[in-house]
Amino acid sequence: MAKRARSRSTNTGNGNSRLKVRDKRTLGQLRNLADGVVTAANRSRDPYVDIPTRSLSNVKYSPRKRIIEMGKNTNRRQLFNLSQAKSYMQTMLVGSGCKRLIEQGKTLSIRGLYYMLKHQIEGTKENTFEEQGECDTVIEDTEVLLDSLREELHLYADKRGDMVGNITLIDSGDEIDCSRMGSGGYAIPSIVEPEVIQFDRKKTTAKFVLHVEKGTVWQRFNEDKFWKKHNCILTHGAGQPPRGVRRLLNRLHSELKLPIYCVLDNDPWGYYIYSVIKQGSINLAFESKRMAIPEAKYLGLRSVDYSRCDLSSSVTIGLTDNDRKRAKQIASYAWFEKKKPWQREIQMMLDNGFKLEVEALISKDISYVTETYVPERLRKRDWLD
Amino acid sequence: MAKRARSRSTNTGNGNSRLKVRDKRTLGQLRNLADGVVTAANRSRDPYVDIPTRSLSNVKYSPRKRIIEMGKNTNRRQLFNLSQAKSYMQTMLVGSGCKRLIEQGKTLSIRGLYYMLKHQIEGTKENTFEEQGECDTVIEDTEVLLDSLREELHLYADKRGDMVGNITLIDSGDEIDCSRMGSGGYAIPSIVEPEVIQFDRKKTTAKFVLHVEKGTVWQRFNEDKFWKKHNCILTHGAGQPPRGVRRLLNRLHSELKLPIYCVLDNDPWGYYIYSVIKQGSINLAFESKRMAIPEAKYLGLRSVDYSRCDLSSSVTIGLTDNDRKRAKQIASYAWFEKKKPWQREIQMMLDNGFKLEVEALISKDISYVTETYVPERLRKRDWLD
Repeated sequence: MAKRARSRSTNTGNGNSRLKVRDKRTLGQLRNLADGVVTAANRSRDPYVDIPTRSLSNVKYSPRKRIIEMGKNTNRRQLFNLSQAKSYMQTMLVGSGCKRLIEQGKTLSIRGLYYMLKHQIEGTKENTFEEQGECDTVIEDTEVLLDSLREELHLYADKRGDMVGNITLIDSGDEIDCSRMGSGGYAIPSIVEPEVIQFDRKKTTAKFVLHVEKGTVWQRFNEDKFWKKHNCILTHGAGQPPRGVRRLLNRLHSELKLPIYCVLDNDPWGYYIYSVIKQGSINLAFESKRMAIPEAKYLGLRSVDYSRCDLSSSVTIGLTDNDRKRAKQIASYAWFEKKKPWQREIQMMLDNGFKLEVEALISKDISYVTETYVPERLRKRDWLD
Repeated sequence: MAKRARSRSTNTGNGNSRLKVRDKRTLGQLRNLADGVVTAANRSRDPYVDIPTRSLSNVKYSPRKRIIEMGKNTNRRQLFNLSQAKSYMQTMLVGSGCKRLIEQGKTLSIRGLYYMLKHQIEGTKENTFEEQGECDTVIEDTEVLLDSLREELHLYADKRGDMVGNITLIDSGDEIDCSRMGSGGYAIPSIVEPEVIQFDRKKTTAKFVLHVEKGTVWQRFNEDKFWKKHNCILTHGAGQPPRGVRRLLNRLHSELKLPIYCVLDNDPWGYYIYSVIKQGSINLAFESKRMAIPEAKYLGLRSVDYSRCDLSSSVTIGLTDNDRKRAKQIASYAWFEKKKPWQREIQMMLDNGFKLEVEALISKDISYVTETYVPERLRKRDWLD
């Protein structure tokens, strides 16, 4: 693969040459990391790396960009420091593992990388990693350190979520027409970077993306051919959308300029999913700039839907103490705090004393959500922002 | 839809006409159920239904058919019996809900059906159902009562699992060429009955199915284009495969005569997944005849792989007490009990004192599992049965 692509990427949809350019950049960053060690050693100085701090204290909401960002704090990790030597070694190990993957043109799950790197350190009884969690932390460190998404390091998490609709894309050289994907749909991959997935703009007529929370709700929309009637793309993320789905939504929005509308449950978890799609997650704030979609809209369910849609009390689910606690936390997030409609929304759920699942609309009619609820909200441009 | 299909199905791949035939049968069974009530009432007798007992005591392994089957015990559910009246009502309610779905040509998630049927009974403060679990039980009752899979009742569960490989199928009229599905793959739907999915035998060249446990492992096999090199189909079920995946494997085996090879973790959970694919599950024994694949082979991982593949102790995971308990339970299943290779397999895991994930093979080489492990097992016809 390396030999085939000699020219610089021209963004023509040639996966291999683009891969090469991006990989070159990532490899360069990995080499810089290693060179730092050599340079320090040559000068008889202690090798170290300064890793941006991934903690709540170093995360803030940028009102201008409308995403969660990391601050400038870093933690120094030194080789010659008893409490830091192991994590220093682990950082280098992850770096070398990713280098191997990129050079071989292969990708691996984070579980796979853990197994690849785990071994007993020669002459000791110590393992390089004891648990997956240790390795995951270092992977995240490496991402921020190199300013590379883990997908650029050739790593992936489990995949979930499907897509159908009026879009044609190229996935690893195969043309996928998402308007001809039957009842099953196209399974959204873990890695949807431009090297893997290119959009065919000419064959893509969709005007917006409808993102729903659950696969079962997605099936209802697909069966009713909502995407055909409304000329859109239909996605779901099986709950909290995994990175692949979030990144794909981001690319559909930023590259194809498609609005993203979310249909989620009227509960703290639904609010939270929206918040992560919109502004990014606190844990992984460094990826917000390529994952978050500040313009994403929350179409529903809303607390007002109980009376607005004339739902029966039998389809409500009482809030638990934990729901109330989470709702208040979310209401105090910087990005919700200053929005009166959101404060009213969350307060009304607390006043209602119950939550509502999207499926509750089925009590009106099997296709109420696809034929009435969503079309009406769209027509009236009635959503939360 | 009903009007379009007048002739009996001729198995020509016309989804609508086939749907009609199958739906007619299911509707007939639902009407019989309702007629029973009317007949009893007309004769001034107590209405009742006899529901096959879904408990361990009424489940047995058939050595001849090599699947788990239900016995002949039934429970009578009477309308004029204080303790049974509610579940009698619920059974009729589920029956009428499914009738509505079939007549409208729509399908619904089991969560959706619960919401559709849940309401306060007029003049009381009693709800028809309090919780999803109540409704699920009655759905299962209705399945056995009518000898219909829930998919035939137009109900579906959440979907998981993907497919790629040398097979072309028709899903709801769309031709899906699974050899051109990129890195994402075709998302296996919940309902894969012949009305929805038809195989294109001419365009399907695959010689077998490789089913792996996890999506991340599936991605490794897909990236290495294992299915292309070995002319096969590659599936996963994101852990314990959901009904859609099991039914699809069953159809691939029974209709296309493809052998099914499973690559699962070397732990009690992996053994259990294999056992469900092969003989069916105890809970849902009545569906075994259309779900189970007695000829499915267990390709690995095996307990012997630790020494056979020369793995390092650092990739082993110690057995917990619960693992040991589960392993002994599984060893005593009727369908494993008489098979010496399986008894040796499970005993060796207990003797090893550890389990092994498929990903542990990555410690040998990133593509060891796709380029060495599985090809060797297949070539040597080395599997457990």
